[in-house]
Parts: sequence; structure tokens; C-alpha cells
Amino acid sequence: MKALVLSSGGIDSTTCLALAVDKYGKENVMSLSVFYGQKHAKELTAAREIAAYYQVEHRELDMGVIFADSDCTLLDGRGNVPQGDYASQLQGREGKPVSTYVPFRNGLFLAAAASIALSKGCGEIYYGAHADDSAGNAYPDTSSAFHEAMGQAVYEGSGKELQIIAPFIRSHKSQVVAAGVKLKVPYELTWSCYEGGERPCGRCATCIDRKKAFALNGLRDPAEEAKE
Amino acid sequence: MKALVLSSGGIDSTTCLALAVDKYGKENVMSLSVFYGQKHAKELTAAREIAAYYQVEHRELDMGVIFADSDCTLLDGRGNVPQGDYASQLQGREGKPVSTYVPFRNGLFLAAAASIALSKGCGEIYYGAHADDSAGNAYPDTSSAFHEAMGQAVYEGSGKELQIIAPFIRSHKSQVVAAGVKLKVPYELTWSCYEGGERPCGRCATCIDRKKAFALNGLRDPAEEAKE
Repeated sequence: MKALVLSSGGIDSTTCLALAVDKYGKENVMSLSVFYGQKHAKELTAAREIAAYYQVEHRELDMGVIFADSDCTLLDGRGNVPQGDYASQLQGREGKPVSTYVPFRNGLFLAAAASIALSKGCGEIYYGAHADDSAGNAYPDTSSAFHEAMGQAVYEGSGKELQIIAPFIRSHKSQVVAAGVKLKVPYELTWSCYEGGERPCGRCATCIDRKKAFALNGLRDPAEEAKE
Repeated sequence: MKALVLSSGGIDSTTCLALAVDKYGKENVMSLSVFYGQKHAKELTAAREIAAYYQVEHRELDMGVIFADSDCTLLDGRGNVPQGDYASQLQGREGKPVSTYVPFRNGLFLAAAASIALSKGCGEIYYGAHADDSAGNAYPDTSSAFHEAMGQAVYEGSGKELQIIAPFIRSHKSQVVAAGVKLKVPYELTWSCYEGGERPCGRCATCIDRKKAFALNGLRDPAEEAKE
């Protein structure tokens, strides 16, 4: 059994990578990161460093061209990423995703991961979707309904050779951190902030979420500490 | 309503394009073709000519790098495409897909189509899967089980903004041709053969299927006629 881990360089996917390495050993695990036209490549650098830390095979894909016509604010040249938490961003959007929703990004990443995983003889794809992401339909491609359907599509479409594993689909981010701390995940190497500054901005939704997740574990975010 | 049609330059997707244009008008339809490292680009040229014929916006994507490690025989440099029909190719493969199965290709194409469709304000993706493709598990990513799950994944993952339409999912290829003949589809522009010769080889599984589909309608394949 070999596993491919979708790695964004953030907390959730890095914890997935730690789980997969812990279960299968580094020689049976590979990581995959995707550039999609985001404002900065800090998370890709982080993913690369994390793969080096775990000594797993690492692959990068550039899918930026696919989002050339999207007005998602995570993308380069599309205006500012909104500040504040997801709840405030969802106000007035009438059930539509937040402006940082990249159209069907997770579906695309999982599909590309499936094609690569099958080519490399992997039977599992790990990815770090968790319960907070899908709160209030902020990111519909992290909902459990999406996850179940996409898992089934990959299973059926691969001739039942491949499964998607989302170990944190029903966990909160603080629980992801709790699991990762046990596995000694090097969180100081991860990057989550939507901005590409020298240090995390501390104001975007993902910075807020991340700080909270550590605080709920009685910890300070090591990425902040390391950069002081 | 706007629709994006996945166009391979073959019979099934070209008939889908004709249906979409007939329903929504050419200004509300776009086509998308994907290069995935196949042995030749004849089908991409055909798709381009077909889009020009219907005067719809056309987009091409290069996803060849994703299949760099696949040993699928449709890909460039991976040995010969087997001759004979699908039934004979499936013998001895113990339920595994045929060697021309490109790993999760349709899932990847549909996911990329979903990202682009949402960016362009389309509410539907048309694609040309039909009942013969999935016979005997030759291509698991054309089965109705895959189709249903992938349709659900796209619907849920898009925040219920996007649907996959596979008008021929329960039709045989001869029925696709029958529908297309009514819509005056320019089949002489299409390309199906797995080989990249001057004319269709007439021996690969898709050539055999295609010839049969026309014959069952009492017709001769116009692509063959045009090239004589």
C-alpha cells in the first residue's frame, strides 16, 4: 500500500502527512502540492520543506491556467483578501461561498491526485479537509456531502483501486492540532496565511483559525514564535 | 444558462456540443479540450475545427504532466495500442481496466471543466460518456456509478451551482449517431482513431466501434469517406 498526501503546506495537510508516514513509512508515502495562481508561493515552499523533513517523494503541479477567469480573491491580481472570520464574510452572500472560494479547487486537486496516485501505484489519497472549513457553506468543496461523493467518484472511476481518506473530516482544527502534537508535527515549518508577508498577517480568516486552534490546546502557534 | 462542453473531437462529445448549441445557442456554449500526453494531437485539431464550425468559444488545456508516470498505452512512448475490440482486450485482465484506460482521466477532465465552468458562469457541463464505454469495466471512469458520484461531487462542491449532463450515459454509440444525424452534426470533422495516421487505422477498438455505430444507422462513416 502506498499513499499520496495532498499537501498545502498548512496545518491540516501536514498533520495528514504525519499520519500517513506514521502508518505506512516514508518510503510508501508521497506528497503533492498544487499551484493554482494564488497571490504568493509561501505555502508551496512550506510544503517542499515539510516533504524534505519527512523525506518523502514530493511533486508539484501548476494548474494556475485553469483559474485564469476566476475572480476569487485568493488569486493573484483579484483584489484584497477580506479580513475577519468566515462568519462575518458569509453575511450578505445569500448562501454563496466566500470570496476566497477557489472554484471546485478541492475537486480538481483530488482528481489530479487520483490520476497521479494510480500512475504511481498508490491505493489511498490523504487530504486535510476538516469540519470548520465547511461551516456555513464557506467552502462547499470541503463539505462532507462533497467529500462522500468525491470519494465515491474516485473509488468507482479508478475501478475500485483507490480511496480518499480524510481523517479530519469531522474534526475541528483544534483536534487536528491535538493529533499533530502527539505525532510531533513540525508546525514551525507550516504556512497558512492568505497573505505572502514575511510573517503571518494575523488578520485573515485562516490566521485567526490557526491561532485559535493552538490556543485551544494551550499552545502558542510555533510559526509565529519561530519568526519573532 | 450557459454550458461548457468537454470536447474530445470524437463522435460522442461532438454530438453533445450539437445538443448544447441547439438548446442554448452558440453564444451561451463553450468547448474545452484537454491534451493529456496522448500519442498524437489529431483529436485536438478536430475539436478546434468543430468549435470553429459551431462558432463557440474554445479552450485547450495541457495536462500531460499529470500522466508522466502512467503506463497507459494511449500515451506517447508507452508501446502499442492493442488491436481488436474491447471484449478481447479485457480477457485475462481480471476485472482491471483495459491498457488504454488513462488513470481517472474523465474525473480529472470533469473537475477541470467544473473549475473553468464556474469561473465562466456556466451552470452545466456536457460530456459524452455512453453505455458502450463502460461495458465490462473497460473504462471505469465512464460507468454510471462513476457518473452519478462525480455529478454529485460537482453539484455539492460547487455550492449547487453546477451540474454535469451526460445525455448519452444510457445510450449505445449507434443511438448517439442517430441523434447526431438529426442535428446534422459534421461527423466528417471528427477524429476517433487511437493512432495518429493520415486516415483512421480501422483496427483499433474505437475505429471498430465507430464504424459499427454508423453501419447500424445504415450509414458509412463520413470521416472515412472524406479522406478517400
